[in-house]
Amino acid sequence: VTSAELKTIAAGDPLAGMGPAARRAFEAVSAATPQARTSALKAMAAAVRAHASAILAANAEDVAAARESGLSDAKTDRLLLDPKRLEGVAAAVDLIAAQDDPVGAEIARWARPNGLDIARVRTPIGVVAMIYESRPNVTADAAALCLRSGNAVILRGGKEAQHSNAAIHAALADGLRKAGLPEAAIQLVASPDRALVGRLLAGLDGAIDLIIPRGGKTLVARVNAEARVPVFSHEEGINHVYVHAAADPQKAVAIALNSKLRRTSVCGAAETLLIDAAVAPTLLPPIAKALVDAGCELRGDTRAREIASAMKPAIEADWDTEYLDAILSVRVVDGLDAAVAHIARHGSSHTDTIVTEDKVAAEAFLKRVDSAIVLWNASTQFADGGEFGMGAEIGIATGRLHARGPVGAEQLTTFKYVVRGTGQVRP
Amino acid sequence: VTSAELKTIAAGDPLAGMGPAARRAFEAVSAATPQARTSALKAMAAAVRAHASAILAANAEDVAAARESGLSDAKTDRLLLDPKRLEGVAAAVDLIAAQDDPVGAEIARWARPNGLDIARVRTPIGVVAMIYESRPNVTADAAALCLRSGNAVILRGGKEAQHSNAAIHAALADGLRKAGLPEAAIQLVASPDRALVGRLLAGLDGAIDLIIPRGGKTLVARVNAEARVPVFSHEEGINHVYVHAAADPQKAVAIALNSKLRRTSVCGAAETLLIDAAVAPTLLPPIAKALVDAGCELRGDTRAREIASAMKPAIEADWDTEYLDAILSVRVVDGLDAAVAHIARHGSSHTDTIVTEDKVAAEAFLKRVDSAIVLWNASTQFADGGEFGMGAEIGIATGRLHARGPVGAEQLTTFKYVVRGTGQVRP
Repeated sequence: VTSAELKTIAAGDPLAGMGPAARRAFEAVSAATPQARTSALKAMAAAVRAHASAILAANAEDVAAARESGLSDAKTDRLLLDPKRLEGVAAAVDLIAAQDDPVGAEIARWARPNGLDIARVRTPIGVVAMIYESRPNVTADAAALCLRSGNAVILRGGKEAQHSNAAIHAALADGLRKAGLPEAAIQLVASPDRALVGRLLAGLDGAIDLIIPRGGKTLVARVNAEARVPVFSHEEGINHVYVHAAADPQKAVAIALNSKLRRTSVCGAAETLLIDAAVAPTLLPPIAKALVDAGCELRGDTRAREIASAMKPAIEADWDTEYLDAILSVRVVDGLDAAVAHIARHGSSHTDTIVTEDKVAAEAFLKRVDSAIVLWNASTQFADGGEFGMGAEIGIATGRLHARGPVGAEQLTTFKYVVRGTGQVRP
Repeated sequence: VTSAELKTIAAGDPLAGMGPAARRAFEAVSAATPQARTSALKAMAAAVRAHASAILAANAEDVAAARESGLSDAKTDRLLLDPKRLEGVAAAVDLIAAQDDPVGAEIARWARPNGLDIARVRTPIGVVAMIYESRPNVTADAAALCLRSGNAVILRGGKEAQHSNAAIHAALADGLRKAGLPEAAIQLVASPDRALVGRLLAGLDGAIDLIIPRGGKTLVARVNAEARVPVFSHEEGINHVYVHAAADPQKAVAIALNSKLRRTSVCGAAETLLIDAAVAPTLLPPIAKALVDAGCELRGDTRAREIASAMKPAIEADWDTEYLDAILSVRVVDGLDAAVAHIARHGSSHTDTIVTEDKVAAEAFLKRVDSAIVLWNASTQFADGGEFGMGAEIGIATGRLHARGPVGAEQLTTFKYVVRGTGQVRP
């Protein structure tokens, strides 16, 4: 479809024609060479810089509306772009342009006794629908990662960021056009109408291969209830720091502090501290002091409060709460089994860490805790594609299939088997 | 749960208690050692042999009922067990016992500049619900593969095989018990009530992590409409043999014949022959003759019928039909682009092959045809886990995510990231 056609479509049903256009664009971007995708990504980054004043003006409009509507300061800050942040958005696209292109990479190759040569080769997934919160940088990140991996994407960002997203999308489309790839490889649902999300979740008449949701509980619940196509789940991160009886005190303080407070709004932030009864009397006071001094509210169970009295009482719901704030629930447990059982019951299979100098205990924890990311003597805040060395990511998947943990370009591919023979038939 | 509890449960709602029992059993079998799973698999194979007379008697009951109800000969044959076939069932379980256990295997491991050591490790998926046609051998295969990969399984076979399945299941449960693993790791839905399938597809109150359907169009449609949890899609196999202009004539005849007729009832069987116009006058007659001589009905487009007159006319619906029978649709195409376009429009992304001596054309076909399995100069009937060297399989997945192609033990696992540190916190 041409720009003009896209505009005509946008005038009526905001989704009309988007599915078929995405499928045709997918054929083009998946068949393009890695070099062509790289060129397009570089052109997109350049276009974001070239469109800076339009993007910042659109963002100012969104921010003004957000302030007027009483959006929280934290959310308004996520929405806000300034020249430095916008350069960060463009630089992230440049970094994705510099990443290896995963399409066509051989994951495995082996020969059979009959001479068949079998290769497992990465291929794009297809058309991805990305439904996300009001963070304009996600618009560029998601679009760039989908293009890097040969997919077409339909973006549906939060309504508070609608003008910013439209302006960023215009820049990205400009980049695609300059690089000779179809603009429909990156489409944006311009209307803030929430009913449209339902049609994306239903698969847009078979056009969508994968839904990637990123947002709060309301979105997650809706996706779970309505999605008719595969989803990369993105549940909350109820993450635990478990301070084992053999923990190094300094590591325990540092890891608890960093896991909770480095950034409280990220899904890799810890929400509960578990500490062995054997060391709680000596280790909990310094950990609690460090957290409280840094501005954290603590909510403890009875045993924790007997040791460190500055805590509010934790109620049952605290163990199941993702605060995303400077609040930490604290429970004293009787050893590894109790810690693992608590995490199995209350965790969200996202990211959990054990602090211990006991290798056997550590390996037992790493084996038994069934989360996407399990750590030993390291902060939960390492739950991040960049920190894993995977390049950019568009979220942490908490589902059990295909992608778990950070979702980068490689996780946005699937594979096929390529079998080369010399005339073999099956007996 | 104990045997007695399972029996109590079975007396009322046939699914009552199955979900929680499966989850508890999953914890036990996933935490068990590979050796424990191997011992259980060997015990299961032995128990199938020890229960042979009970299984054959139950099967005779099913077969008699099938003949009485007028089930087709082909389907009745799939249902039928005799001592030799039953030994094959037990031997397949033994082979799975001899396979590498995938749980805990490191897929990748790397170090980060900050010293973090990151490993990607295979873990079981969880509770699998397997919904399948009336083939008693699938009961044992699916149960064994799920156990090999540390999963718990809920089996729901076709009602025509219900007595056979119950008898095989009793043997498998006996094997689990003797090996000290929970019987609930392999549960069978004993009731033939189809409404129960709906509750499995809804996830049985969050107990089910994955649905594996295996069956005809009615089941596939129902799964697509009702499944609320991840599914390994198992669509039909509308597979193509494309005879390119540079095909070797002997390979073309052999591959067309084998792809269609080696077994017509398997999903890897070819359903359509595409042949380049440039070679159709010389190559189509011998290919058609070989097929017709072997008992195959041909349905050709106008151009094919002008060349080989023994064909019935193909109608539009033929290109979208999985015959699973000795019928082949035949179309003359104008080169690679036309063949790829036909497959994109009518194929089911399952298995497609090109016959050619032209490497460039072959590689273009392998790259551009977006099917789970693409072959060059080999029969489509190689679409099989055993032929791929993957050991046993329980089907060919046609979805785009997680598992594509043959589904064996490895495809029944997921992974987690295990991160080992020395006190690292994130700046």
